[in-house]
Amino acid sequence: MTQEPETVAVVGGTGDQGFGLALRWAKAGRHVLIGSRVRARAEEAAAKVKAAVGNSARVEGSENADVVARATLVVLSVPFEAQIATLKAVRTAWRPGQILVDLTVPLEASFGGSPTRVLKVWAGSAAEQAAQHVPENISVVGAFHNIGAHALQEIQHEVECDVIVCGDNAEARGRVRPWVEAIPGCRYVDGGKLENARIVESLTALLIGINRRYKVPGAGLRITGLPH
Amino acid sequence: MTQEPETVAVVGGTGDQGFGLALRWAKAGRHVLIGSRVRARAEEAAAKVKAAVGNSARVEGSENADVVARATLVVLSVPFEAQIATLKAVRTAWRPGQILVDLTVPLEASFGGSPTRVLKVWAGSAAEQAAQHVPENISVVGAFHNIGAHALQEIQHEVECDVIVCGDNAEARGRVRPWVEAIPGCRYVDGGKLENARIVESLTALLIGINRRYKVPGAGLRITGLPH
Amino acid sequence: MTQEPETVAVVGGTGDQGFGLALRWAKAGRHVLIGSRVRARAEEAAAKVKAAVGNSARVEGSENADVVARATLVVLSVPFEAQIATLKAVRTAWRPGQILVDLTVPLEASFGGSPTRVLKVWAGSAAEQAAQHVPENISVVGAFHNIGAHALQEIQHEVECDVIVCGDNAEARGRVRPWVEAIPGCRYVDGGKLENARIVESLTALLIGINRRYKVPGAGLRITGLPH
Amino acid sequence: MTQEPETVAVVGGTGDQGFGLALRWAKAGRHVLIGSRVRARAEEAAAKVKAAVGNSARVEGSENADVVARATLVVLSVPFEAQIATLKAVRTAWRPGQILVDLTVPLEASFGGSPTRVLKVWAGSAAEQAAQHVPENISVVGAFHNIGAHALQEIQHEVECDVIVCGDNAEARGRVRPWVEAIPGCRYVDGGKLENARIVESLTALLIGINRRYKVPGAGLRITGLPH
Repeated sequence: MTQEPETVAVVGGTGDQGFGLALRWAKAGRHVLIGSRVRARAEEAAAKVKAAVGNSARVEGSENADVVARATLVVLSVPFEAQIATLKAVRTAWRPGQILVDLTVPLEASFGGSPTRVLKVWAGSAAEQAAQHVPENISVVGAFHNIGAHALQEIQHEVECDVIVCGDNAEARGRVRPWVEAIPGCRYVDGGKLENARIVESLTALLIGINRRYKVPGAGLRITGLPH
Repeated sequence: MTQEPETVAVVGGTGDQGFGLALRWAKAGRHVLIGSRVRARAEEAAAKVKAAVGNSARVEGSENADVVARATLVVLSVPFEAQIATLKAVRTAWRPGQILVDLTVPLEASFGGSPTRVLKVWAGSAAEQAAQHVPENISVVGAFHNIGAHALQEIQHEVECDVIVCGDNAEARGRVRPWVEAIPGCRYVDGGKLENARIVESLTALLIGINRRYKVPGAGLRITGLPH
Repeated sequence: MTQEPETVAVVGGTGDQGFGLALRWAKAGRHVLIGSRVRARAEEAAAKVKAAVGNSARVEGSENADVVARATLVVLSVPFEAQIATLKAVRTAWRPGQILVDLTVPLEASFGGSPTRVLKVWAGSAAEQAAQHVPENISVVGAFHNIGAHALQEIQHEVECDVIVCGDNAEARGRVRPWVEAIPGCRYVDGGKLENARIVESLTALLIGINRRYKVPGAGLRITGLPH
Repeated sequence: MTQEPETVAVVGGTGDQGFGLALRWAKAGRHVLIGSRVRARAEEAAAKVKAAVGNSARVEGSENADVVARATLVVLSVPFEAQIATLKAVRTAWRPGQILVDLTVPLEASFGGSPTRVLKVWAGSAAEQAAQHVPENISVVGAFHNIGAHALQEIQHEVECDVIVCGDNAEARGRVRPWVEAIPGCRYVDGGKLENARIVESLTALLIGINRRYKVPGAGLRITGLPH
């Protein structure tokens, strides 16, 4: 079995980070479906992707439930406060074998506070919360939390960041690897169980604070000491 | 004002990580006081440091309260479950202007669970908890959480890890910088407020999990995208 | 000094619980200012209070910032997700000596989840979070979390519930006592420091779950074993 | 099926709260096994129970693993820091169909801090943590957290406290009911899912604070508004 024919849906792909991922994957020749609550906005984002990476890009825009139904990998990139509502809205679109890749970070900024602080959700992490709002036969993986929108959208530059991938199903984590490696500069790091997303998500708030203190657009991280 | 004449006390310096730091600083020519509840154990650790880095090493061992009283920088490196008791035991030894550098990580392993999980203390982080158990005129800084004992003790190798330093007092954070830079391979990263130690501490549990999954002795981390 | 001439502002007094408190205090003859983002809605709520408890009720409606400026006691009764934004909006209206009584409960329902679960905010509790968004000379107290809107609005019945009052300033806690005792059936319980609001807030989620399991409109609680 | 012939094991029954429960159940004529790490201490506690409630009391003392193996209901009443180790030590003693009733409260006092504060464990609550350390076929229920040792040991007086019982298995919650009702003054309250133990456990810390502020030996709580 090969990963190549997989199609990714980016739910919330009109937002900064989701759009950045769509750009990167389209540039890598992947089939990308951009989802939005409003079809027209998704189509507009798809057109912007084509404008940026070329007309041969395989990218389409549609409503969230529609892109979920058509993809093998579903990336959820919405603000934390919209996560549950979005998952409820697409609840019936899932098909067995799909994977949900959750990027959500529960920043305090979601309800008027600071983007350098996180809240602790009852489920533990946003990713574990997501898992409570998809059918049981959908594997949930947390990933891509720590890459900022700026780094993704600067498509002429490599992204200098490891992607720590957490999920209870090791095979599902593995299926995310080629999507990580399709982005130049990104390295896949096995983050283990989904519960570890608690830590990986919170790292985003730390990086946002580092961006502010160092006046840089997109601090990232590398894990050192791994085998080559 | 120069940092050079500062003396560091490593409370809990007979433990793996504290001993590693003592080794590194002694090797760098710094004046190091190793503290322990039992003086003889501290002296023994000091002797081991000398055996490793040479007899000219400026290292001594004594009881915790004694080393606290004599140092400018006090590093606390004890297991989480001993943190409050240790701070209570040295409570009267502090002098104004000293800095407490807390390395404590509230691992679930502290009470029989897993070292890949953290607990959330009432104060927010172990470092913020420490701040509630020192006199008000002592600045508390969290640092060095993410460097494993193994990496520290392999003194012939560089430590491949950034040290994220958190503390409410920017001057206190700055005073920790030369101690970071005295360890080859370590880079100082300004972690901002003490409350950010919540995230930095939890990162240790993530790195421990990575060590296990990748079968490596000491994964670390680098922040990318910072100015050179 | 007597508490009688104090005026209460109920920010968010058009919501179910805030309106219930306004009703109770108006019925007790207190001077009540109902606040809303939209003046007309506040005036409408004030009219409803008069319709319910009689035209002699001393109740007025106005914009949030206006009622904050005119009250001695300011009760904040808005959904969790609006708490910080509301406090930012009235930030300049405060005068020294005023007390903020925060009723906010960080229910998961605030962002699409369950009302029987709470999230843990960075500040510890919603009340501690509130304290970070008012001027330093405003005392913050958490109270009234555990009385449901239904019990408050059934003004012909007593409210069968203790009110646990938390706040770092004991005098401020005490100033809330007459407002508790103005509601028939309510008893003041000294909840100690503001940080204890973490527990008291979460109790609301437990009571909501009990309401559901027992199919009752408003479970409450009594502390037993106190001196008479 | 009747609950009467059930036997309760109180692991940690030599501690204040566990001993209090053993006393109460022995007084009610139930069959009680007191467990301890050291058999002699358990036997001593059993003798004290007999001295207090009469020689006809059906109470025995033995090692923890032994009493677990012989009981239908196993009550775990050990300090938080000993919970995981105790469960690991009795791991092989369980038989299908048994119920674990966890009383553990993760007080900050467990590691040198205050008994009026709780820590948040990775699993969510101490009860959920317990569930990760028993075989899968053992139902875990959280209960009896809010009754202090003093109230239990004053066997000539009723205990003025509701017992909120949380557990994912409704039948298991129900099997705890007769053990609640065997203690005069205690009322069973259905606390719903095990996850709700997070709130019920933390309530204990609040009650301890109330004990201190009001200088009373054992504040408890009653839920109001329930059907009669």
